[in-house]
Order: sequence, then structure tokens, then C-alpha cells
Amino acid sequence: MRIAIDAMGGDHAPKEVVLGAMDAVKQIHNLEIVLVGNQEKIEPYLTDSTNITVKHTTEVISGDDEPVRAVRRKKNASLVLMANEVKEGKADACISAGNTGALMSAGLFVIGRIKGIERPALSPTLPTSDGKGVLLLDVGANVDAKPQHLLQYGIMGAIYTEKVRAVKRPRVGLLNVGTEDGKGNDLTKKAFDMMQQAPFHFVGNVEARDILAGVADVIVTDGFSGNVALKTIEGTADLMFSKLKETFMTNLKTKLAAGMVKPELKGLKDQLDYSEYGGAGLFGLAAPVIKAHGSSNARAIFNAIKQACHMIEYNVTATIQETVEAQQVESGEE
Amino acid sequence: MRIAIDAMGGDHAPKEVVLGAMDAVKQIHNLEIVLVGNQEKIEPYLTDSTNITVKHTTEVISGDDEPVRAVRRKKNASLVLMANEVKEGKADACISAGNTGALMSAGLFVIGRIKGIERPALSPTLPTSDGKGVLLLDVGANVDAKPQHLLQYGIMGAIYTEKVRAVKRPRVGLLNVGTEDGKGNDLTKKAFDMMQQAPFHFVGNVEARDILAGVADVIVTDGFSGNVALKTIEGTADLMFSKLKETFMTNLKTKLAAGMVKPELKGLKDQLDYSEYGGAGLFGLAAPVIKAHGSSNARAIFNAIKQACHMIEYNVTATIQETVEAQQVESGEE
Repeated sequence: MRIAIDAMGGDHAPKEVVLGAMDAVKQIHNLEIVLVGNQEKIEPYLTDSTNITVKHTTEVISGDDEPVRAVRRKKNASLVLMANEVKEGKADACISAGNTGALMSAGLFVIGRIKGIERPALSPTLPTSDGKGVLLLDVGANVDAKPQHLLQYGIMGAIYTEKVRAVKRPRVGLLNVGTEDGKGNDLTKKAFDMMQQAPFHFVGNVEARDILAGVADVIVTDGFSGNVALKTIEGTADLMFSKLKETFMTNLKTKLAAGMVKPELKGLKDQLDYSEYGGAGLFGLAAPVIKAHGSSNARAIFNAIKQACHMIEYNVTATIQETVEAQQVESGEE
Repeated sequence: MRIAIDAMGGDHAPKEVVLGAMDAVKQIHNLEIVLVGNQEKIEPYLTDSTNITVKHTTEVISGDDEPVRAVRRKKNASLVLMANEVKEGKADACISAGNTGALMSAGLFVIGRIKGIERPALSPTLPTSDGKGVLLLDVGANVDAKPQHLLQYGIMGAIYTEKVRAVKRPRVGLLNVGTEDGKGNDLTKKAFDMMQQAPFHFVGNVEARDILAGVADVIVTDGFSGNVALKTIEGTADLMFSKLKETFMTNLKTKLAAGMVKPELKGLKDQLDYSEYGGAGLFGLAAPVIKAHGSSNARAIFNAIKQACHMIEYNVTATIQETVEAQQVESGEE
């Protein structure tokens, strides 16, 4: 397996990207990595280059760049050259912790979609109260989704969850304003009807209150609502951690108590840290493309690499294509 | 002022509703309350009936009732009779902690909309990190919103926030997938353009990550996304509190620490308790209609009553009507 990684993407690039890559080639059998980025900045951290090559470029796409324009104009940016590696068959998958929009654009324009998939979906796995995690898709690749797109997200999510996360017969839910059948807006009502005939285990509507409660293995939604849900989780968790910190700083007694629970609180933070589940897959592209979190450390990069490897090993892309083709034949859409 | 209250609505009805009402008439000048519900169940708690009358009925709408059907068929339900009090001019406002959908239906069918308002909006005030609170609307009254609806939500939200919450020139933001101009789905792009000419202080797009961060006083969104945001906040906060509790129960040391920070943690929970800001207004109806939280205690009911009183005193309904009329003349929609 060969994976191309944008060494310049993310808040802690290239250091943490390089460290994560070195860990991965040590632990994962048969893995070769191409780090794409500024050789001069990469090499100080690349203490062992076994199975790692560097593809040098100085151009980068920053977080502030307008995604579509950046991908079109910055032809030598590390993120674009990374996608080229996949396009040219030199890599089986790619990973970036950089500009999400630019990665989606490069995915679409350089790597391309799986035949039959209308829209790719950005698909992170979030921590749940039972520790099993839930795949939420789409969280923003496609903000004007149609019912058919949501159906395809369900197919892709179920295949990924079964193959990569080893969940048997994953439960696929539809994010909605109520759990009862017939609830929702025009989009979710139509998607609900389609999902009842879908080639996956559809468990009906899921309310946003239950996203993290473990009621489904996959939750399908349009990119706008999914983005709202994901960022609301982040914002609420941030607010609570900062308020909790304030609470512990109130007086001498609370400070003392803080010291006593410090390791356990750290454990709590880790439980809620979704980099443990890897990055967000951009499902529906012709090869595995992973968006690692912008604040990824070496461990998060390592997990994203492991995730990409699993997607390659278990033929997620080919299985999605076959399932979508079969589904379209069945529903007479050929 | 005369306020009708559904004494049978909510998890702790009628007890907490009655207690909250008794508190309110004691503290708020010139207030009369009509409690609508089962006299036999209300009276044990009604230890002082000064300025409180009971309108007896045994029929109730439960949380499981299908809202529209329940309002149409259960003509003598406490919630429906409460709305009738307003319709017949016997009350200036009404409050229920019961079935949200039924309250919206009763609001629409019995009380009716403000002339010129196309869709009412369910509008809770949420706690923010700076303690000032943010009004989020709509959170589910209208799940298929049009740009014009969002514009009207902005108008209603700004008027309420200025008059009732005494915020000068409230900052109105639009919930979106990014903060930059031009971001979003078809709905938010169109709403953004309309809001730039709106009769309120529009501060642009707000990401869901910042809903609780105090970046705006009013955040406007469609009912589907607003519902997702609100319930995601609740779900995330619930998960974190339950994980925190688990963390404190880990071992003897953490249990000891828990005892030491107990009062401060209680304070943290109160900070995040949005019943302090009253209930969720159903803005756009011909009179103030307040949805108190289902789990309301006496204090939450008291706050909802205070909120309804402020809406009456400061002529929120009339001001919305005048502003919407003026805006429609200006944009040539007469």
C-alpha cells in the first residue's frame, strides 16, 4: 500500500505529520508513504526514512485560501500534488490535515467521483457515550443535498462501518427533528421513504439530541445540518470544558480538588477526542481521501493513516461502486 | 395584565406550574393568572389564590399526541382552552410547558399570526459563555423555511431582544457553514443578501461552533437546522455531565474531590440552564405565546411568566407588526 500525505497541512505541520508517518510505517506492514511538501522543513523531523519518500514542493494552500480557486491556481501546492499522486496511480489513498474545502475540491477535480455516486460526503466518526463511535455524514461537502444523495450516504456509511469498523449490520439512522415516521422537512421525508427500501439496515429517524447516545452506527444528514451538528458539538464541548476549568479555579478548595481529579479529567477529554477514530473520510471519491483534523498531532495522523490502510485493504471504494450500481439497477435508474 | 397558563403541561404539572404562578402574582404588579386544567389536581397546591382563577377542564393533550390532530379534536384540552382565552380577549398572553407541536398548532389555528408574518418561529434564549444569552430562531416551527421567513425571524428577534432583554442595537447573525460572505446553501445565500438591507443590525454569518460564544445576540436559522443545533447542544451537555459524573465516581480520591467542588459544579449547571431566560417564545403570533421547557420547575414557570409580562408591557407584538409592514412597503411587497 502506498499513501500520499500532505505534509504541510494542519496546525502542527510538518512536524506532527512526519512523526505520525514514521510511526505508521513502523507499525503497519507493507506500507509506503509519500510526504508531499517542503523538503527543508520536513527533513529535520524525518529521523528515519524507511519506506518514506519526500516529494518536494514549496507551494502551499493555507486555511484562508478560497478552496476552489486555490486548487485551480496553485498547481504545485502540496495538497494538489498529493491528489495527483492518487490520480496518477502512484498512491492508493491520500490524507491532509489542511484546508477542508481545498481537499474536497482536489478530491472532486483531481481524483474524481466513484461512478454512480452523485456527491461525495465528508464523514467523521464521533465519540459516543458507549465508546463505539458514530459515523456522521455529510458534514459539509454538499450543502444543498437531494434525497437521492442522502440514500447514497447511507450506502457508503454502512459499507465503511461494516468493513473498516467491523460493525455487523450497522444501524443507519436519518437525522431529523423527531423520531416518529413522517416527521421532517421535505428533504428528510423523501429520503426516509427511499431509505425504507435501501440495501442497508435503516433504523429510522434520529434526533440531534441522540447523535452521541449510540442509537445508530451511521447517521445520515445533508451537509448543512451535518455541519451545524458537528460544530455545535465542538462549540458546546469547548464551552463546557472552559467553564469547568473556571469552576475548578474558583477557590483554594476547588483548586485542590482539580489536582485530585486531573488524570481522570484528562481521560474524559480523551474519551471525547474523535481523532482516536481517525480523520473524516471523503466518501464517494475514486480512492480513499481522508481529512485529518486541523489540530492533528502525530497520533491523530497515525490513526488517519491506519484508517486509509483499512479502506484500501477492505476494498471500500470498489464495494461502494458495486453496491450503488446494483441499487440503481434495482430501482430502474440505469 | 392577564395571562392564561396550561396548568397540565410539562413533566411536573400541575404542581410546579401552580407554585410558579403563585410566585409570579406575588412579585409582579397588576398580574392576573388563569390556570387552565383539572381543578381537583390544581387545588392541593394552590394555597393562595389571590389574583389566580382556575378554569376547570379534565381533557389534556399529552406529549405523545399528534399535535395538529390533538388540537383539532380535543377541543376541551387545557392547552386549547388556554389559547381560547387569548383568542377571546380574556388573556393577553399564554404559556404552556406541554406538547410543543400542539402549542404551535393552537397558536396558529386558535390565536393566529400577526398580519404580514408568514411563519411563526420558535425562539429560545440559550446561555452563552459571557452570560448574556443568545436568542436562536427558528428551532422547529417551520422546517421548510424560505429566505423571506429568515428575514422576518431577524426582525422579530431583534425587536424582542431590544425590548424585552434590553440589548441596544442587537447583533443579528445568520447560522451558516462558514463565517465568510457568500458561504452557505441556497437558502442562506439568499437570506444573507436580504439581511444586508434589513431594518436590524446584521453582523453576517455565524458558525454553529460559535452559537454559545456570544458573537451575536440573535442567531437566525431555518427550523430544521435550528432544531438540530438546539438538540445537539442538549445532547452534548447531557453526555458531558454524565461522563463528568462517571469521572468523579472513578475512585475514592475522585469521590472526595467531587464533594469538594459540589456547590461550584451546581453553579456551573445553573449557568448552562436556559430556563433562567424564560421559555421559548413563539414569535409571529397575534399575542405572546411562550413554550416553557417540558421539565420546568416553579422557577422556570415564574421566568416564563415574567417574560410574557415583558412582552406585553413593551408591546412586542404591535412593534413586530409595524416593523414588518414598514419593511414590506419599503421593499415594494404591499
